[in-house]
Amino acid sequence: MNTYEIIYKKREGKVLTKEEIGYIISGYLAGDIPDYQVSAFLMAIFFKGMETDELAEFTRLMADSGEKVDLSSMGAPTVDKHSTGGVGDGVSLILAPLAASLGAVVPMMSGRGLGHTGGTLDKLESIPGYNVNLSQEEFIRQLEKIGVAIIGQTENIAPADKEFYALRDVTATVDSIPLITASIMSKKLAEGVESLVLDVKTGSGAFMRRYDDAVSLAKAMIDTGRAHGRNMAAIISDMSQPLGRSVGNALEIKQAVEVLKGAGPADMRELTLELVSIMLQISGIEPDPSKAEKMTAENLSNGKALQKFAEMVEEQGGDPRVAENPDRVLPAASYSLEVKAPSDGYIEKMDTRLIGVAALSLGAGRRNMQEKIDFSAGIEVLAKTGDKVSEGEVIAVLYSSRESDLSGVADDYLAGLSFSEEEQKAPELIYRVLR
Amino acid sequence: MNTYEIIYKKREGKVLTKEEIGYIISGYLAGDIPDYQVSAFLMAIFFKGMETDELAEFTRLMADSGEKVDLSSMGAPTVDKHSTGGVGDGVSLILAPLAASLGAVVPMMSGRGLGHTGGTLDKLESIPGYNVNLSQEEFIRQLEKIGVAIIGQTENIAPADKEFYALRDVTATVDSIPLITASIMSKKLAEGVESLVLDVKTGSGAFMRRYDDAVSLAKAMIDTGRAHGRNMAAIISDMSQPLGRSVGNALEIKQAVEVLKGAGPADMRELTLELVSIMLQISGIEPDPSKAEKMTAENLSNGKALQKFAEMVEEQGGDPRVAENPDRVLPAASYSLEVKAPSDGYIEKMDTRLIGVAALSLGAGRRNMQEKIDFSAGIEVLAKTGDKVSEGEVIAVLYSSRESDLSGVADDYLAGLSFSEEEQKAPELIYRVLR
Repeated sequence: MNTYEIIYKKREGKVLTKEEIGYIISGYLAGDIPDYQVSAFLMAIFFKGMETDELAEFTRLMADSGEKVDLSSMGAPTVDKHSTGGVGDGVSLILAPLAASLGAVVPMMSGRGLGHTGGTLDKLESIPGYNVNLSQEEFIRQLEKIGVAIIGQTENIAPADKEFYALRDVTATVDSIPLITASIMSKKLAEGVESLVLDVKTGSGAFMRRYDDAVSLAKAMIDTGRAHGRNMAAIISDMSQPLGRSVGNALEIKQAVEVLKGAGPADMRELTLELVSIMLQISGIEPDPSKAEKMTAENLSNGKALQKFAEMVEEQGGDPRVAENPDRVLPAASYSLEVKAPSDGYIEKMDTRLIGVAALSLGAGRRNMQEKIDFSAGIEVLAKTGDKVSEGEVIAVLYSSRESDLSGVADDYLAGLSFSEEEQKAPELIYRVLR
Repeated sequence: MNTYEIIYKKREGKVLTKEEIGYIISGYLAGDIPDYQVSAFLMAIFFKGMETDELAEFTRLMADSGEKVDLSSMGAPTVDKHSTGGVGDGVSLILAPLAASLGAVVPMMSGRGLGHTGGTLDKLESIPGYNVNLSQEEFIRQLEKIGVAIIGQTENIAPADKEFYALRDVTATVDSIPLITASIMSKKLAEGVESLVLDVKTGSGAFMRRYDDAVSLAKAMIDTGRAHGRNMAAIISDMSQPLGRSVGNALEIKQAVEVLKGAGPADMRELTLELVSIMLQISGIEPDPSKAEKMTAENLSNGKALQKFAEMVEEQGGDPRVAENPDRVLPAASYSLEVKAPSDGYIEKMDTRLIGVAALSLGAGRRNMQEKIDFSAGIEVLAKTGDKVSEGEVIAVLYSSRESDLSGVADDYLAGLSFSEEEQKAPELIYRVLR
């Protein structure tokens, strides 16, 4: 076996054996196979893909490259959600405590924002004191105690994925369905949950802009998870406009608290309820869909989910009063600017990626992993696709701790919208559920 | 402009600008762009190809990465031949002095053997004293004096190609038509000839096994050469069996001398005559095909080509008596073994690559650039495709300076042949001429 032959074989579209895949992964991690061979290998996968069993093996070997989290002590079904990311996607903040309040154990390892999308860890860190860096022991202890924790990935989860990802990121091989699948699912396998629901986004703010690609990715991830005995489901949801009304870290925490209090934007609430309901069903907590939906909605109205959220914040060192009065706890921006509709009409389209970039420009995100985030920065999105607006009406509010950025970003924001004189339909929120 | 965007653009099948291609080439040579990005870039080219103008630019920029040979002092048409390589392909040894004897200047920079194919330089070095390492000044001086020289590439010809090739060789991106074209043609552009004929091989011993690929490669090279004002032609010739009767360095020199004396194997003679005739035509020395063919054949019979060969050998420090009595000058193998037909029948097919590997195993080639060659080693191929053989008839003779190898290689040789009881047709020698 040698690296050249394996690259060649994949280049010719052949299915690799687990020995061949293992040879590449372990050789690369050991430093025996150079970057330049692995990047050619990844580009060959980009063009030729992987078959279901081959991809399941690839994913397993990536997961096996590091530590596994042992959730066997939980005594309750373990279930997680993964979203492919978008603008305003603060679902995890609500979903994790809500599912835990219903008897699930939710061991969530999340990521940071990069580029136009936000990250759950950054959002949580806008709560003063919140610590996302638990050790594996602390993580397990908290899960045993309150059934939920949202932390950053511990050091040794799927190290092969970290190496591969760094290489993909500079060689134009990120947006490959098998490579995305192996990357996400290797971490989820290592994190040890029994059940996983995927929220695959499609539209102008998503990594998979095209609907068909989103479905292909969802199917590949479901197949891979099932090959390793996990209970899997996926929804394909809309990212042709920001989710909810808030884009930015503290803004999204505040909005999450509203939803946890039974209020908040309808789309955010609906998507979260659907995902939690599926979590209850696939994990066996409540297999009946209508009962699962009912339970889930109840725990948003009765305050149990909010209480679980407060417990989680407190356990992780954050100020739990955020659950009562977010404005008192969260950082507030020094400057704001209203963005006004340029004319009467309907919002026809939103370039959601541009809106994410606008929030990034305000300080809500980072262009590279070294940049610091302005937790108070962001955008309140007051009008969305299909909404009727009048000239001069406030359609968004920008927040930042730097006054200088605001008016330029207002132009960028408007550049991301298109208006029509004709009535426009709002996009569907959930396109498809794959079970 | 950045490397990622250029890789991405090519991955999406877009046409690169000359600025983008130049950015990659100069950045790579300067050490600013790492191997792993260039290998991903090369794999993207493998899958997405290059358009005619784009490839011509790529080739020019590779040529421009180093020195150019200035042939302006020659005062006669400069013309070269390039073969894509095969087993027993000693055409250059005959062709270069033959064309020079007819008034062409033939500044040939050749390569060494690697893997299953031989190299002209190794063959010439089997002549005691022959020096292939001339400086550019010595090269020019010899060309001015006798009109022909066969040397190794001087250090600074297309250094970008050397770097790219080393990377392609370990990342399964060698057999790509645009990359082969840029590699070959960049060197030929830098070597400064006005006219070039290509001998693109197809069949079991060729790099381009499939006929259609050979034609595509020939066309791409012709287009690229013409884009830079060179007179171009190509033939597609057979490599489904060894060319001529000899495989191995000293053996091929001896055979070349036979052809230069007007004898030798018919296929070697026919192919050489055709190529030289085309050289005379495209370089304008003799535009009329039938006159060109006649002149060419004459100089094989009248000894002028042989004399030019002797001059070349002598100029480059070799023993010119090789042209009179090769056996007295060339190294002879200490051991030989006859390979016998296992049964009565016809030779149906020859796996020419395997025959090349058999010669390599005897010591005639090298597996890597560090290996030393046994100049005396090789194979006399006494029966070829379509030939009728009787059980026990000697169909090949193996030569080596290591006795131990012979019987295993005899088995390998036979494994490369298939026999039939039915009469079999010999393959055509020249499939197509592209002008």
